[in-house]
Amino acid sequence: MAEIMFERIALIGIGLIGSSIARDIKELGLARHVTISTRSEDTLKRAEELALGADYTVSAAEAVKDADLVIVSVPVGASESVAQQIAPHLKPGAIVTDVGSTKASVIAQMAPHMPDNVHFIPGHPLAGTEKSGPDAGFAGLFRDRWCIFTPLPGTDAAALEKLKDFWRALGSRVDEMDAEHHDKVLAIVSHLPHIIAYNIVGTADDLETVTESEVIKYSASGFRDFTRLAASDPTMWRDVCLHNKDAILEMLARFSEDLASLQRAIRWGEGDKLFELFSRTRAIRRSIVQAGQDVDAPDFGRHALDQKK
Amino acid sequence: MAEIMFERIALIGIGLIGSSIARDIKELGLARHVTISTRSEDTLKRAEELALGADYTVSAAEAVKDADLVIVSVPVGASESVAQQIAPHLKPGAIVTDVGSTKASVIAQMAPHMPDNVHFIPGHPLAGTEKSGPDAGFAGLFRDRWCIFTPLPGTDAAALEKLKDFWRALGSRVDEMDAEHHDKVLAIVSHLPHIIAYNIVGTADDLETVTESEVIKYSASGFRDFTRLAASDPTMWRDVCLHNKDAILEMLARFSEDLASLQRAIRWGEGDKLFELFSRTRAIRRSIVQAGQDVDAPDFGRHALDQKK
Repeated sequence: MAEIMFERIALIGIGLIGSSIARDIKELGLARHVTISTRSEDTLKRAEELALGADYTVSAAEAVKDADLVIVSVPVGASESVAQQIAPHLKPGAIVTDVGSTKASVIAQMAPHMPDNVHFIPGHPLAGTEKSGPDAGFAGLFRDRWCIFTPLPGTDAAALEKLKDFWRALGSRVDEMDAEHHDKVLAIVSHLPHIIAYNIVGTADDLETVTESEVIKYSASGFRDFTRLAASDPTMWRDVCLHNKDAILEMLARFSEDLASLQRAIRWGEGDKLFELFSRTRAIRRSIVQAGQDVDAPDFGRHALDQKK
Repeated sequence: MAEIMFERIALIGIGLIGSSIARDIKELGLARHVTISTRSEDTLKRAEELALGADYTVSAAEAVKDADLVIVSVPVGASESVAQQIAPHLKPGAIVTDVGSTKASVIAQMAPHMPDNVHFIPGHPLAGTEKSGPDAGFAGLFRDRWCIFTPLPGTDAAALEKLKDFWRALGSRVDEMDAEHHDKVLAIVSHLPHIIAYNIVGTADDLETVTESEVIKYSASGFRDFTRLAASDPTMWRDVCLHNKDAILEMLARFSEDLASLQRAIRWGEGDKLFELFSRTRAIRRSIVQAGQDVDAPDFGRHALDQKK
């Protein structure tokens, strides 16, 4: 049991991320009182059934009153609306943070509304699953995962450190960079992979010559690995695409250029060029394994079957 | 222990697939005698150290003499050369099969050389890992995986059934279709995913604004799932690209068209269009889980970390 880090925490949004934070707070005893708020009556009711907090309200304004820490966990496109609702009701000295996958847009949406006497510190825990909603969350989601903060110039060092300590208590490793750089990094390590995965699954769905049941039956030979990413929350990913547009379009342009070149090599039978590309990508895999970001077990397509036994 | 199914088996090529077959034959006692052949002296020596068979030779011609079953497990680009070498030495009545990922090309390369008195039955076990070489193989690789046969018109039914029984003994589920259809199915479920994975890892490697160490550090947010596919054997995949060119180019063209349309929707902020695509791909994921081709555990990015504990 960790010590109490905040007297009162308000969670605005109680989906996969919000509800996982709620479970961690409860399990670790990090706050004396947790208020949960979400726009949807149904979701709020479900959060109450799951006993994720102490108070429940559809009013974000109501929820943030007296809160020492406010965590906004909504699709990034809803950030400005939430900021407008909560701004007049925030407690002086409160820390306001978020968990959005894009940071420049969230800052542009929220910062102008934040009163001078609160600490607005944008954050992004790099954690999630392909599930969504309050039932999908679980304690420990953030353990051993990175949480990146993109503080604005002049951010109070003590408030930032307190927020980092909170995430460290959840098991996260913390990191810091500016919002523009965050958005570029995430565009390549997360946004582009998801968009490509959505796209390839869409392409397969549209084929006339290969049936959907064949795609499903033989999916373990590579395709299946993309379907997990492509099953992620559509609202969240629509908003990511709309709110990290520039970085995503740049990555997409580079990817498409490279793919056109690869396609040309296939058409003209340039075996050496293909071999060269297919060899250098192995090195990155090795580095990822060495960095402890994956295990070196040959489980391509195997682990799911093993789990079933 | 299964019964002996073939007196003598010759394995031509002893990489991941060949050596896994060798281990299964040995463990299950499916043959009285196994001869192993590969072009590389070093690989042959390693196969002998691993005791994968009874006889070892660099001469494929030598290996197939007296063999009742010949399994060719080489990169598909080497199929014709192997066919030429073994054809004059095949035992009348022998079954000759392969494990290549493309079938029309293997048939075009091998069938013209096959004598009339042997049964040439092309096959493709849909199994593998991102590792290669004789050390990468393991008993049980084919368990619960599909093995697709693409028999030529007029194939002897008894020989086909015997070959299917062999693969069933290895734990595979067997299926049958024509070679052209196989090549289209595999182009979408396996070849395109691998090519896309190689491509995105290449794109990430070339960035100036995001360092390689950042890509590696934050890879768990999506990118990592692609690196496993992109670490597969370069020689095998070069050959797949060169030998299933038409089907792959068609799938690439469709994929690129779809991606251009998705990119346009991002540029013009067409949220509804993005939401629609990101929603329909969820249904395919559900079907894959229902078909038992994956488990419904939210392990996106989690299972590797869990395994480490």
